[in-house]
Amino acid sequence: MNTTGRPGRTGLWLIGARGSVATTAVSGLVALRHGLVEATGCVTELPEFSACPLPTWDEIVVGGHDIVNTCLPKKAELLADAGLLPHRLLPSIEPGLAAVDAEIRAGHDPVSHRGAQADAARRLADDLTEFAERHALDRVVVVNVSSTEAPVTLLPEHQDAAALTAALTDPQRAPLPPSSLSAYAALLAGCPYVDFTPSTGMRLPALRELAAERGLPYAGSDGKTGETLLRTALAPMFTTRALRVRSWAGTNLLGGGDGATLADPRSAASKLESKSGVLSSLLGEDVTAPLHIDNVPDLGDVKTAWDHVSFEGFLGARMTMQVTWTGYDSALAAPLVLDLARLTAAAHADGRSGPLGALAFFFKDPDGNREHGLGEQYRQLLSWVDELGEPTRGEGETR
Amino acid sequence: MNTTGRPGRTGLWLIGARGSVATTAVSGLVALRHGLVEATGCVTELPEFSACPLPTWDEIVVGGHDIVNTCLPKKAELLADAGLLPHRLLPSIEPGLAAVDAEIRAGHDPVSHRGAQADAARRLADDLTEFAERHALDRVVVVNVSSTEAPVTLLPEHQDAAALTAALTDPQRAPLPPSSLSAYAALLAGCPYVDFTPSTGMRLPALRELAAERGLPYAGSDGKTGETLLRTALAPMFTTRALRVRSWAGTNLLGGGDGATLADPRSAASKLESKSGVLSSLLGEDVTAPLHIDNVPDLGDVKTAWDHVSFEGFLGARMTMQVTWTGYDSALAAPLVLDLARLTAAAHADGRSGPLGALAFFFKDPDGNREHGLGEQYRQLLSWVDELGEPTRGEGETR
Amino acid sequence: MNTTGRPGRTGLWLIGARGSVATTAVSGLVALRHGLVEATGCVTELPEFSACPLPTWDEIVVGGHDIVNTCLPKKAELLADAGLLPHRLLPSIEPGLAAVDAEIRAGHDPVSHRGAQADAARRLADDLTEFAERHALDRVVVVNVSSTEAPVTLLPEHQDAAALTAALTDPQRAPLPPSSLSAYAALLAGCPYVDFTPSTGMRLPALRELAAERGLPYAGSDGKTGETLLRTALAPMFTTRALRVRSWAGTNLLGGGDGATLADPRSAASKLESKSGVLSSLLGEDVTAPLHIDNVPDLGDVKTAWDHVSFEGFLGARMTMQVTWTGYDSALAAPLVLDLARLTAAAHADGRSGPLGALAFFFKDPDGNREHGLGEQYRQLLSWVDELGEPTRGEGETR
Amino acid sequence: MNTTGRPGRTGLWLIGARGSVATTAVSGLVALRHGLVEATGCVTELPEFSACPLPTWDEIVVGGHDIVNTCLPKKAELLADAGLLPHRLLPSIEPGLAAVDAEIRAGHDPVSHRGAQADAARRLADDLTEFAERHALDRVVVVNVSSTEAPVTLLPEHQDAAALTAALTDPQRAPLPPSSLSAYAALLAGCPYVDFTPSTGMRLPALRELAAERGLPYAGSDGKTGETLLRTALAPMFTTRALRVRSWAGTNLLGGGDGATLADPRSAASKLESKSGVLSSLLGEDVTAPLHIDNVPDLGDVKTAWDHVSFEGFLGARMTMQVTWTGYDSALAAPLVLDLARLTAAAHADGRSGPLGALAFFFKDPDGNREHGLGEQYRQLLSWVDELGEPTRGEGETR
Repeated sequence: MNTTGRPGRTGLWLIGARGSVATTAVSGLVALRHGLVEATGCVTELPEFSACPLPTWDEIVVGGHDIVNTCLPKKAELLADAGLLPHRLLPSIEPGLAAVDAEIRAGHDPVSHRGAQADAARRLADDLTEFAERHALDRVVVVNVSSTEAPVTLLPEHQDAAALTAALTDPQRAPLPPSSLSAYAALLAGCPYVDFTPSTGMRLPALRELAAERGLPYAGSDGKTGETLLRTALAPMFTTRALRVRSWAGTNLLGGGDGATLADPRSAASKLESKSGVLSSLLGEDVTAPLHIDNVPDLGDVKTAWDHVSFEGFLGARMTMQVTWTGYDSALAAPLVLDLARLTAAAHADGRSGPLGALAFFFKDPDGNREHGLGEQYRQLLSWVDELGEPTRGEGETR
Repeated sequence: MNTTGRPGRTGLWLIGARGSVATTAVSGLVALRHGLVEATGCVTELPEFSACPLPTWDEIVVGGHDIVNTCLPKKAELLADAGLLPHRLLPSIEPGLAAVDAEIRAGHDPVSHRGAQADAARRLADDLTEFAERHALDRVVVVNVSSTEAPVTLLPEHQDAAALTAALTDPQRAPLPPSSLSAYAALLAGCPYVDFTPSTGMRLPALRELAAERGLPYAGSDGKTGETLLRTALAPMFTTRALRVRSWAGTNLLGGGDGATLADPRSAASKLESKSGVLSSLLGEDVTAPLHIDNVPDLGDVKTAWDHVSFEGFLGARMTMQVTWTGYDSALAAPLVLDLARLTAAAHADGRSGPLGALAFFFKDPDGNREHGLGEQYRQLLSWVDELGEPTRGEGETR
Repeated sequence: MNTTGRPGRTGLWLIGARGSVATTAVSGLVALRHGLVEATGCVTELPEFSACPLPTWDEIVVGGHDIVNTCLPKKAELLADAGLLPHRLLPSIEPGLAAVDAEIRAGHDPVSHRGAQADAARRLADDLTEFAERHALDRVVVVNVSSTEAPVTLLPEHQDAAALTAALTDPQRAPLPPSSLSAYAALLAGCPYVDFTPSTGMRLPALRELAAERGLPYAGSDGKTGETLLRTALAPMFTTRALRVRSWAGTNLLGGGDGATLADPRSAASKLESKSGVLSSLLGEDVTAPLHIDNVPDLGDVKTAWDHVSFEGFLGARMTMQVTWTGYDSALAAPLVLDLARLTAAAHADGRSGPLGALAFFFKDPDGNREHGLGEQYRQLLSWVDELGEPTRGEGETR
Repeated sequence: MNTTGRPGRTGLWLIGARGSVATTAVSGLVALRHGLVEATGCVTELPEFSACPLPTWDEIVVGGHDIVNTCLPKKAELLADAGLLPHRLLPSIEPGLAAVDAEIRAGHDPVSHRGAQADAARRLADDLTEFAERHALDRVVVVNVSSTEAPVTLLPEHQDAAALTAALTDPQRAPLPPSSLSAYAALLAGCPYVDFTPSTGMRLPALRELAAERGLPYAGSDGKTGETLLRTALAPMFTTRALRVRSWAGTNLLGGGDGATLADPRSAASKLESKSGVLSSLLGEDVTAPLHIDNVPDLGDVKTAWDHVSFEGFLGARMTMQVTWTGYDSALAAPLVLDLARLTAAAHADGRSGPLGALAFFFKDPDGNREHGLGEQYRQLLSWVDELGEPTRGEGETR
């Protein structure tokens, strides 16, 4: 793979490649290549990014892993019925979707898997390598858009790369959750990794150690697409105006696959944890912040969030703000997946490694960055983009 | 007056000194001096401003003009009944309110005034000069918090200082609206001027010419306290995420004196004009943006705004956001009046003149600055504050 | 036409037969006939109406007038793209839509019409008569679902049937607005008439006189489908709980053809007048009730209404309620059009004449009934339905 | 006690007599007696009740049990600071509050109580009897407004009066939760009982058996004051319009004592159960209805509820309604406590016994009535009120 600064032909390998977010991202990519739609929602298409060495839509080749079999063209039809894609696009994008579908390989299924996780990882990494070779790619960015997993308990072998490598060879054990197994496979294949979910993924010391050894960049966690996006835009308004937020309550209603996954309290725990750090970081610890995620199947892919903020002003005056956000979660996530693939490819081409804190703008729980304010995250992103292509320097904590 | 960098003893002269905003500001100032309340809502009390040479609460002396007679202690009682001030504060702040009330002089009443406006201006300026002398003040900042006026038609004498000076001596004419007459009087007395309302105030070429001649700074217009504050915090979220806002509708319900004033379509025109520039500046011209202000007397000083934003995401997906803001307008405005007095005093002490564009953070329609994004305005404010006390340089358009 | 109690084969003649409401109603009727959809939204399909002698879906034959040429199958496609009809229905209902489209005749176009209105009315009435004969119908119910007209000034000839008849023969004059001309034509053809809009329609003394002479029933005005529906469900909650509503502010955002029509202040005046009577009737005169209708084209057929209610409870405690309603206006209106055709046909078959006050449940501004409370209107409707088929008695004011 | 039809001098004995609801009710009663306020929120003051034989405000004497010691005048001051009572009333109502406070006796404290519950009940009943004698009352209505208890497990002795009586004498056991002990004491003293909370109270077969034996009426459960009030007003709108509700999600935010009590999941269980029956009863079983109650201390006595309703209309069109309700819970509850005391006294005077199903209008979970629709409940109440004073007949299930 080259590191001449231009990312060149870029693979985008999706974990969960037949899910709603992946299907929307691929549908959009195909439509963008054909000039059928505008790039609404794609941050990297803003004028501020025009000088940045990013792969073009034509340079991006998509493949992925999944454990479900509904083919992408069929899935796209279902999303059109749900209002997520315009029906009129379907005929034009069908061939492109079918081509990507042909690049999807069987994902790792923890339920049916027998044998050591090292073997499973090897197989996943081989899929990546063969994909890169098949399409003569300069690099492949792995992006996890699969279902949210429950939080994991940190094991001793998670702390140390050597211990992990050993543990993975034991067929009686399964030390890594699926998201981290994917991340490990990406590292084996020399690929940057992006976690768009709150699952563990790369967030184990042993994996970070391996990424550092191999000089690979990674980014995460948990794409910021709705309620949290709003919160990180609004909370700085209160703090810079010296208004004291007393409580910030939130309720999220969603259906679809995400709703069903998050109806499981263990998965919801990951999501709630990822979301809840934002307010205390931006507003301090003493804000009462009850937060709920409810599975409301009839809403389908629509996600509705209600936030109620109670705040105090001059002389203790009590005031409130309420926000209701109603969006198609996949429509909000999909363009960011393309943005992250492009930016991470550019970072890799530029020789960056470790957590890409400058991508905090995209995440609820940014890896390598403690900044949560949306405006400041954007400023940091632009500044990082301006530096891309300049002589390499150490990454890591942005502040 | 000194220009050694420290603003020193600072007069705050309020036009509309017995109105709700003024009474709340003075009540708060007195309570702050006595350590009875926290400085919630005061931007200049944030840690970021601790190095800035600002007058302390004890160094600020308040006076003002008004044409109504309800004394401040009585007005404060009414505001406590309306929920704006805690009843428990009243006994402790009564003496301080009475002292300020004794410094209030009869304002200019355009209805009853006979004679040339030059004489009226002279009288107002004398009130300022005597106030400064009586209290041995280093400088006096005039802040207009009176009722919103209708927009004015630009006359030839508004364009040129000499022509204006001549026109003012004609007893048959009244070329200046009251807010501009106050601004003119401030200039005569060598005082900086802040317009917290959307009235014309300093925004006439002739007055700007005089301010430049006298090296006086001024700031405005129209304090950003509610719906517009929200809009300037939220609109950048959409633009930096490349989401396309299609419509942004707003309805404002308010009672009290402001509600009654804005029930007059001519006054409302000033306010609507001041508010409406924000969205087109931040989002472009093609956003449908109906906006209403309704007088709902039973709401009293509470202002409720509902905003409905319809936006388009990836592949044309249609999504919405709604916000309801419920606040005490005077509680939001009052601390900003104190902030503006402090910062404008510091600018004057630092030798700045012309429009203080760096104060855009506080205004709906910032004079001397085209930036409307709240986060960026805050960054500009901090950067300006950091420079205060450094060697003087030309002010004017920040960008 | 029979009056044996059973309405039998029933014509539904739509004024505005190619508009959104009409197209949705016809699409639904065709789909219901084929058993493709459930009758959601059809009041007359509730169990409470099972004993009522109503025409079945198969017995209803649709025709109409319109001045636009987009054929119904094409219009249905556009509505499916807008989310109003499921795409999957289109192939099955296309033949049924085409059959109805063949029954649509050129409507009266006041702009291009030359000659006396009597001739125009004759032509419209002939269309009705021929339609009835062509399909061997027992009766035809005319329902106005065309665009809202501006309010009219009452002329002397509006007061008296003989004077009106004379004035209509004068080719230099056009005493009737289009809705009233349609109503007049319905009377000429012996057809009951329903006004689903706030236009003048049958509400002229001269027309009422003619309806009485001919023993024809009629109903109106202005279908109650959204914000007003909510208000008439909620206002009785406040009154029966002795809570004092102080203000009830409303903002309506809508696009589509309705939005464009109501962007004209003259048409909006009719709608606002029709809506505004409800609150004062239910809550008394002293409620502050600002009300806006904004044209927001990007919303298409979606109508969003925000209501803010401020009310007073025990010991003067001030409380608020807010409601946001987001609905497809045509989807809410269309089933009511079918309900009204059925119920009015049944009333006609039962020998009723004059205003059908018992249908107040369906209207914002009910003709022949001062009751606005939704629950009480429903009770009255059920009680009226129970009586249908019993010996005829005088209609008119229900209370 | 007389049963001549006129309730006469009526005692109102409050369980939880120093709580917020009780204090507000008593403050209001005193203010009403002195003509200081209007009877806003009192249903029994509506014109429809003018012919009903109810005790006047002067005829109602208040006492009660509580285990806290903050006296009523002090508690009223705290409520005034919280915005629930106008400060201006305090001086005038202080003597009346002090007089009631003198009638408050130590309530049953299950934590500190030693000995058999029979003795405790005897003591509570004696307090009631002495109160009635001291004030020469014709009857005493006991109303439970104390904190919500956890649901109880049904024990064998709850099923049968004799078994219960025996179990109560065992000092090792405490078969009754506090609310039911209060109800039992009321029965011992021959007093009607009203449960304004969702606690068990009278809802044990053994207690109902005793009430029937003694010919005593009772009413409950759980005053309908906010979100549920709204739901029972709105749900019939959907059903009578044949619109299909798919989901109805709710979030309640509240502080104060209620918030703290309901932060305990066991108490919240009672409340959630009481609330949740309403929707399935009105809309059927297949409505997804997540419901949360969050303790948000900074809201104090303000209760904010957000409801999100997703419903389906004609041809499956998906639409939504959102409601935000912001109210002072005690201000909503207090007048209903007075109403229930009056109506229950009238029922007792009229010789009614058993559950007063006709009072369903006031309750979330009405005892003796399956009707939940607010409009229909009101109609039933009026009809019952019209019959009061007519010859006695059996009460019980209204439908």
